[in-house]
Amino acid sequence: MVDDVGAALLIIGNEILSGRTQDANLRYIALGLNEVGIRLQEVRVVADEEGAIIAAVNALRSTYAYVFTTGGIGPTHDDITAQSVAKAFGVALRRDPRAVERLLRQIRPENLNEARLRMANIPEGADLIDNPVSHAPGFRLGNVFVMAGIPRIMQVMFEGVRPSLIGGARLLSKSVTIFIGEGTIAAALAEIQQRRPDVEIGSYPFNRDGIFGTVIVVRGTDAPAIEEAVAEVAGMAEGHGAKIEIEVALPR
Amino acid sequence: MVDDVGAALLIIGNEILSGRTQDANLRYIALGLNEVGIRLQEVRVVADEEGAIIAAVNALRSTYAYVFTTGGIGPTHDDITAQSVAKAFGVALRRDPRAVERLLRQIRPENLNEARLRMANIPEGADLIDNPVSHAPGFRLGNVFVMAGIPRIMQVMFEGVRPSLIGGARLLSKSVTIFIGEGTIAAALAEIQQRRPDVEIGSYPFNRDGIFGTVIVVRGTDAPAIEEAVAEVAGMAEGHGAKIEIEVALPR
Repeated sequence: MVDDVGAALLIIGNEILSGRTQDANLRYIALGLNEVGIRLQEVRVVADEEGAIIAAVNALRSTYAYVFTTGGIGPTHDDITAQSVAKAFGVALRRDPRAVERLLRQIRPENLNEARLRMANIPEGADLIDNPVSHAPGFRLGNVFVMAGIPRIMQVMFEGVRPSLIGGARLLSKSVTIFIGEGTIAAALAEIQQRRPDVEIGSYPFNRDGIFGTVIVVRGTDAPAIEEAVAEVAGMAEGHGAKIEIEVALPR
Repeated sequence: MVDDVGAALLIIGNEILSGRTQDANLRYIALGLNEVGIRLQEVRVVADEEGAIIAAVNALRSTYAYVFTTGGIGPTHDDITAQSVAKAFGVALRRDPRAVERLLRQIRPENLNEARLRMANIPEGADLIDNPVSHAPGFRLGNVFVMAGIPRIMQVMFEGVRPSLIGGARLLSKSVTIFIGEGTIAAALAEIQQRRPDVEIGSYPFNRDGIFGTVIVVRGTDAPAIEEAVAEVAGMAEGHGAKIEIEVALPR
């Protein structure tokens, strides 16, 4: 395994668990974190229920360097993320004047009703996260970053906080596509993995229009080590007489 | 909240956490479970690491009526789901002759090497789950159903076991699309939710080509209760002079 800075994502929302909405944030956050040398190590999806959110926030924030949450910070009754995170940390939730000021950039004073003002209820001690799209802020409390669920807003919030994250080495990867079943090369692959603990070798079978094959993904933080392992995998596959394709290195 | 039979999904795979692969199983399983009156209440995504898999399996199987896992049951070194589930239950992993027989339907005896035979290593006491696509089986141990990660295979495994699941009432939903911001109607919506604890009212804002609006989803197991709540939501929105659209009831 490759050691680096670990993060978790907590997706909050009944609409994901019911199948109504396909999550679009996991992959964006995973790729974005990796570019600053942080590795997404666990994801949880929970319902809009205070107990479930508190339990997940506390389990994840004590385990990982960073926790990101998405969803549940709007103005309606089912938006309970801020109050749940406050309870998880044992701090008060209070009307934050900085957040009210931001809401007033988007919302006329006569329209800033009590429901919309709920979006300015922020746990004590939290820093606000900018929202250049619709101004209602997210917040950071300790190592927990609370963001919107709408992908376009989540993305600007995430890009805003990313420069403040302290990561380790960036995870790189290179793929070898082998037109042969993974069972045929599994033993040789396990042997390469065993000799090369400095990289992580994943094997993903595919069937493209009836043609079976395997994508071998070599991941790690050391580019030369990846190149060496890829060369070994390619040589092994050629030894089996398999057609191979090598992909360029990607940061993931 | 609506009480019914609860389930969790455990997605196992570095390729999901790295952002390489977009999960395609959560939504399928969520919708499929709901059709038999089972509600997906939590999802976790963990890496191909024994400790992480064991901890998640044990946490979820003690909390929910059913647990489904996807991924990690192939022939390569990174496929460690079966051994991890066996350890989670404290039972032995053994070469299962029924599973070997199934592998031989797909694989010629001379190609059934030790790596491919790993796919016949099944925890003691488990029932096999059919795989009409490529024959390598999944398995059920207690309330945990272990399935492949490849969507096409996961789907046939899931459809195979679904008739054996014992669910409660099916969750139904009906949507009201309101062309007005959710902050404007939030207080009235909260009031409707408070008076109608037999349904669950979700509010999802949207911006379609610059037109802002809110989709109100009313979920529940009692169709007349949903209709009544939808009528109230629609009446409330009309009171605000908003254009509305009502969607037909959907099983989710």
